[in-house]
Amino acid sequence: MSDRYRELSVELGERSYPIFIGEDLLGTQDLSPFVSGAQVMIVTNETVAPLYLDRAKACFPGKRVDTVTLPDGEKFKDWKTLNSIFDGLLEQRHTRKTTLVALGGGVIGDMAGFAAACYQRGVPFIQIPTTLLSQVDSSVGGKTGINHPLGKNMIGAFHQPQAVLIDTASLQTLPPREVSAGLAEVIKYGLIRDQGFLAWLEEHMESLVSLKPEALAEAIFRSCACKAEIVALDEREGGLRAILNLGHTFGHAIETYAGYGNWLHGEAVGTGMLMAAELSALEGMITRDDCDRINRLILRAGLPDRPPVGMTADDFMGLMAVDKKNVDGLLRLVLLRSVGDAVVTSNASPENLALTFARFCSST
Amino acid sequence: MSDRYRELSVELGERSYPIFIGEDLLGTQDLSPFVSGAQVMIVTNETVAPLYLDRAKACFPGKRVDTVTLPDGEKFKDWKTLNSIFDGLLEQRHTRKTTLVALGGGVIGDMAGFAAACYQRGVPFIQIPTTLLSQVDSSVGGKTGINHPLGKNMIGAFHQPQAVLIDTASLQTLPPREVSAGLAEVIKYGLIRDQGFLAWLEEHMESLVSLKPEALAEAIFRSCACKAEIVALDEREGGLRAILNLGHTFGHAIETYAGYGNWLHGEAVGTGMLMAAELSALEGMITRDDCDRINRLILRAGLPDRPPVGMTADDFMGLMAVDKKNVDGLLRLVLLRSVGDAVVTSNASPENLALTFARFCSST
Repeated sequence: MSDRYRELSVELGERSYPIFIGEDLLGTQDLSPFVSGAQVMIVTNETVAPLYLDRAKACFPGKRVDTVTLPDGEKFKDWKTLNSIFDGLLEQRHTRKTTLVALGGGVIGDMAGFAAACYQRGVPFIQIPTTLLSQVDSSVGGKTGINHPLGKNMIGAFHQPQAVLIDTASLQTLPPREVSAGLAEVIKYGLIRDQGFLAWLEEHMESLVSLKPEALAEAIFRSCACKAEIVALDEREGGLRAILNLGHTFGHAIETYAGYGNWLHGEAVGTGMLMAAELSALEGMITRDDCDRINRLILRAGLPDRPPVGMTADDFMGLMAVDKKNVDGLLRLVLLRSVGDAVVTSNASPENLALTFARFCSST
Repeated sequence: MSDRYRELSVELGERSYPIFIGEDLLGTQDLSPFVSGAQVMIVTNETVAPLYLDRAKACFPGKRVDTVTLPDGEKFKDWKTLNSIFDGLLEQRHTRKTTLVALGGGVIGDMAGFAAACYQRGVPFIQIPTTLLSQVDSSVGGKTGINHPLGKNMIGAFHQPQAVLIDTASLQTLPPREVSAGLAEVIKYGLIRDQGFLAWLEEHMESLVSLKPEALAEAIFRSCACKAEIVALDEREGGLRAILNLGHTFGHAIETYAGYGNWLHGEAVGTGMLMAAELSALEGMITRDDCDRINRLILRAGLPDRPPVGMTADDFMGLMAVDKKNVDGLLRLVLLRSVGDAVVTSNASPENLALTFARFCSST
């Protein structure tokens, strides 16, 4: 089997778990060793179910497998949709020994994971991410949750999965816009921690955009390895883990302004990383050339490099003040000390922040 | 200060916390050492707020204290009411360094605790229980959650408080029916683990029902000590902790049948413990005299000794099958090996269970 996939481990003591990465794993990889009870509940959505549900079910031989199929989209990442998972679990009489399985993108993973964290005060779950974004980011690390009208991911839990199964073949059905959104997080790992990976991405961006399997597998492996390392060092975001939020404070403001789901998370993060780079340059940490280099890579990944038309500096400030990365009123941001080395700081000058908005925002 | 209160500790390693028990602690005891940030959000209800909110606020000198006031009652222990806590936190811009404070009975404690477990993936909280039931039971041990139409406490988390403040004076405003409901859980500790305490309760039941301060303080201290010991041995209910559910599987069925809030939790547990005692006698574990002794004490505490009129054996079986104490389809029950010694078992014979229902239930 070991030539079929590459394996990583997220090292968290007794909560450690493996990540399997390979082609055509769905339907052929036996995941039942990661299920302690007799019941499995697969949580998926209307888009993914017709493509992969049957193959996902085949990963759990000998188990009783039920399904909850949710509507597709970030705008359904709310309590009402979450509650339909609880409805399904209770109607099918799933006990506290059940295992939940998230089959889909980041929204499904966040919701199924949060449902697992809360159902009967916590049951195990498994991640089967089917989008590039969820494969390289949200399926690893145990962050789960739903949105609130006043802020993204404001309600949630840290809840680590038992295992993560990444089938690179599932990316072949992914819309190009979602491939680009995933590439934003891939680029992020290069920017925050791995200059060599960033150089590799500059060489292979065209292969990634055109979904070449070998390039995808390598990018996913290196992204997951980077994330697994950071999560192992700082599971509950006491410090280091916050660098994973490069571009996210700006990005969340964009997503909220645009209305959840109108800008994809990765698209907003892509633009957010450019704003963070701009601020880093204004603070004298990176050069103008570095900013241009990052901007080129973002554009080659097919990502937007500007916030939504009409979004003003005031919009950003209002929305960023309720972002949960704020501690006791200070605006904490992830900036680049150099390309490949991120830092969390609350020392960015208000003038340079205003200048960043001025350069990226509409004036009205 | 130490002559003003008695102190217990719940020993959970880095999550250990103190319980303070005494008269007139509200408004005089400084709880700010248990608040790490600058913000405090007190969650209370419409009944408790006019009585104790001002005094509770005075426990947090130097902190910014906001309030969310919920409607009063078990029927509001749902997502909609929980969400109004999140609304308040986000509207008042509480960060992930805020501390929630539960001021009220078990419903408030469960909801404020669950809100703390989920808000921004977890913030600290403090319990100030104002009912006897919450003082001796739900405020200690970290179980939090809300109800689902298909089952009680089906959605929740384990989340330990930073501290518990028990002011025995707050019981003087408690309706007699709620005093009785609290006494059900007090009696439970004697039944499951402390024969000496049970004998003490038989001697002092009249003093407790008439709210004599010294008797109340002693009963609360011994109850909390018993619960703290059990929780320290088994925080997440892997085994021993389940004995705390004596009477609860029957009791939850009664509560669900009656409609949440029509029977008080403690009332249902009181009758549930009598049903568990009956089944224990039928299984040959305790004597008929033991059953009569327990029945007398339940009646002296002012508690019902029968399920609701009209509730049948079928009602019980249907509702108990979705109780979350079931693991992989087996009906697990807490029974009495002897008075003062409980055991969790899935071996009770179906015939004796049927006989128990026949003796307690209406025939229709």
